[in-house]
Amino acid sequence: MTRTPNKTTAKAGHQSRSASACRVALIGFGTVGRAVAKILCESKDSPLRLTHICNRNVERKKQSWVSSDVVWTDDPRVVLSSNAQIVIELIGGLHPAEEIVRGALEVGKSVVTANKQLIARHGPDLLQLAASHGCQLEFGASVAGGVPVLPALRTGLCGDRLTGIAGILNGTCNYILSRIENARIPFSEALEEAQARGYAEADASEDLDGGDARAKLAILALAGLHTRVVPESIRARTIRPVDAVDFDYAADLGCTIRQISRADLRPETGQGTLFADVGPCLVPSGSPFGRVQRNLNLVLTSGQYGGDMAFLGAGAGGDPTAVAVVSDLRFVADRLSDGGKQDAKQDAAIKVSSPAISTDFETPWYLRFFVRDRPGIVAKLAEILAAHHLNIDSLLQKPGFDKAALPFVITLEPCRDSVLHPALEKMATLDFSIRPCLCLPILRES
Amino acid sequence: MTRTPNKTTAKAGHQSRSASACRVALIGFGTVGRAVAKILCESKDSPLRLTHICNRNVERKKQSWVSSDVVWTDDPRVVLSSNAQIVIELIGGLHPAEEIVRGALEVGKSVVTANKQLIARHGPDLLQLAASHGCQLEFGASVAGGVPVLPALRTGLCGDRLTGIAGILNGTCNYILSRIENARIPFSEALEEAQARGYAEADASEDLDGGDARAKLAILALAGLHTRVVPESIRARTIRPVDAVDFDYAADLGCTIRQISRADLRPETGQGTLFADVGPCLVPSGSPFGRVQRNLNLVLTSGQYGGDMAFLGAGAGGDPTAVAVVSDLRFVADRLSDGGKQDAKQDAAIKVSSPAISTDFETPWYLRFFVRDRPGIVAKLAEILAAHHLNIDSLLQKPGFDKAALPFVITLEPCRDSVLHPALEKMATLDFSIRPCLCLPILRES
Repeated sequence: MTRTPNKTTAKAGHQSRSASACRVALIGFGTVGRAVAKILCESKDSPLRLTHICNRNVERKKQSWVSSDVVWTDDPRVVLSSNAQIVIELIGGLHPAEEIVRGALEVGKSVVTANKQLIARHGPDLLQLAASHGCQLEFGASVAGGVPVLPALRTGLCGDRLTGIAGILNGTCNYILSRIENARIPFSEALEEAQARGYAEADASEDLDGGDARAKLAILALAGLHTRVVPESIRARTIRPVDAVDFDYAADLGCTIRQISRADLRPETGQGTLFADVGPCLVPSGSPFGRVQRNLNLVLTSGQYGGDMAFLGAGAGGDPTAVAVVSDLRFVADRLSDGGKQDAKQDAAIKVSSPAISTDFETPWYLRFFVRDRPGIVAKLAEILAAHHLNIDSLLQKPGFDKAALPFVITLEPCRDSVLHPALEKMATLDFSIRPCLCLPILRES
Repeated sequence: MTRTPNKTTAKAGHQSRSASACRVALIGFGTVGRAVAKILCESKDSPLRLTHICNRNVERKKQSWVSSDVVWTDDPRVVLSSNAQIVIELIGGLHPAEEIVRGALEVGKSVVTANKQLIARHGPDLLQLAASHGCQLEFGASVAGGVPVLPALRTGLCGDRLTGIAGILNGTCNYILSRIENARIPFSEALEEAQARGYAEADASEDLDGGDARAKLAILALAGLHTRVVPESIRARTIRPVDAVDFDYAADLGCTIRQISRADLRPETGQGTLFADVGPCLVPSGSPFGRVQRNLNLVLTSGQYGGDMAFLGAGAGGDPTAVAVVSDLRFVADRLSDGGKQDAKQDAAIKVSSPAISTDFETPWYLRFFVRDRPGIVAKLAEILAAHHLNIDSLLQKPGFDKAALPFVITLEPCRDSVLHPALEKMATLDFSIRPCLCLPILRES
């Protein structure tokens, strides 16, 4: 019986210790939300105190390891009218996430979110809204999960002037492509495997077709290049047509294939031009990109003063993403404890330019054809390329394939996309092609 | 003649724009100092304004590209009694750097420094001093130059609980070792080459013998593992005995050799034990460490929640280091503009433990002998190893060497340093050895 008072004291002690801590409400109690709550509940001497958990059908979600004084609710309005100082938005998607984030900022609550679609679309406006209400908006978990790229752009790299960012930003694509690379299995089999392991959703279009990576690239461009980019203005090429045979041909070129998202800022005229592209590319097998396996993420930054930096780590998963969320929480709480208004800084953060967006990279190219074989095919293709002043760098045709569906490859010396495109349109009309030509940029190391 | 007023207006305009900017004084105008001044002078709309440059014989240092209203002085006291809000200390070494940093903090000026020896030795005390005077101390440039590891520990990874940090922290050693690896030249030749290229000083002992890396590891342990470590308590092994032949034998084991600094926190009892070591190690050729070439730096962190992260970039050089300094300046200026006192946070930052320091890693080992060949040598060594219950994993002897100076290698299955050490002492008494046995840990990927 003597132990009960002790236990009570200990519990009460915990609460009183954290009474001065920053009050945090969590909206969205899925994988990441649970991981965030775990870290908050497990941390001793934390400057953060979880006060609310909000989720649909919240009764079914309750966990015994959550402090008994946390309020469980399925109504976000309860959170918005509470005394929480920071709202964590982890429900994802545009609605009702946008309304909740705006609602929180409008009543002076700071917001931490992992919502890439929301930030990619409305980041500049929401930052402005936060500034005008003297509160903060952080979104470090919205790109590359636990890889601290966004915080690095905000801190350790903010003294540089970045000119380019490139990354493997979608773990699903990287899992699938590295599986095809290592096992030479068909795309469909690699996709099924990724789905079975929980690395890909049943409808994986957002991942495979580049929508997910494009949103992340828009956020990196905002945070690192200070450019406002509508995600849809970035060309996204799908990885679906990539075939096991492409890894054979890529290997002959010393390369492998990865989904690469890249943005280069060229401040030539006016607000400059942002060259941006998302999609499968040939990368040297021994390069940092070529060596990224499984569902890891890699981000490379290029700075005028600091040169190139690389960040590698787990791009997704509950725990790594939760680390990014909790790190943001600590950052925001730290500033709240300063007691100052945030206006000046957030204003600075949203001084963004709106450059023209171009996909017209000058690069060498990999063109892979599947044809019904007959004499004269190479001559015909070479003729079209010559007519468009495009220089062939190599021609690869491996033996042993069915002549009715023969894959072969032409690589081109560097040329602009806009010069290549008319030639590809011309080639698309040729009757011996049994699939559209797969056209991939070849990224050489700088 | 009409252009003169315009020019004047533009200049005055620049000064008035930056009147509300944070006032920054620079002490130490060497390579990094000049690069910092360049970035500050080139940045438009910067929240930072350079007010003083202090250096010995400052008259000879004056540069035309520095704004005419910057005060040049060779007396640090002029800076300490000025209205500068942040002092940048870039003179290096312990004295008078320590006195200047203490002097600045005591009059309420925040400090940004790249001084690894100072922070490694007095970091916790100086943080305490900063806190007690309501100002800030940042040292992001003191480890790995432009690689934003320290800022990442402070921000994007602060939500995790780190258990280990390992890195290639000394560019000089990495340049020398990767040169021997790639060209199989003698150590002395690689050192001379590094000196000729400016990658190594005339007296490179601090680099080669691990003093530099040890100081950086102590800082990483402070910032990432929240442990107070006296640099001298970390064992530092020199890279000087590493021979070109060691890369041949390492290659047979799928490995190469790098100077690795590592610290693992094991919170078993009390304040726990910090396993720490600096020195040459065998690492798999295909591992992140094995692939680091030239004078680059790589840092890996292991977190309880976020798993492993890797940071790669330029560890030294004026411009990359200056980016780290300017990033810290912006961070400090940002907080100063909040107007809040820093006490609470800095207090939190210096809640550090003082674990026991151990070098007693359990690891496989690479033992390389140079002997005057005669029958019975292997038998004798094997007998000693067996007597100490040490298991041989492999025995490598390449043909073609002079029998009077024959290199051969024994690798051991994992055992603790403390178990191996007595066996090594016993072996050191054997008369056929013509050089001390080179004993390197073999790091396998986890």
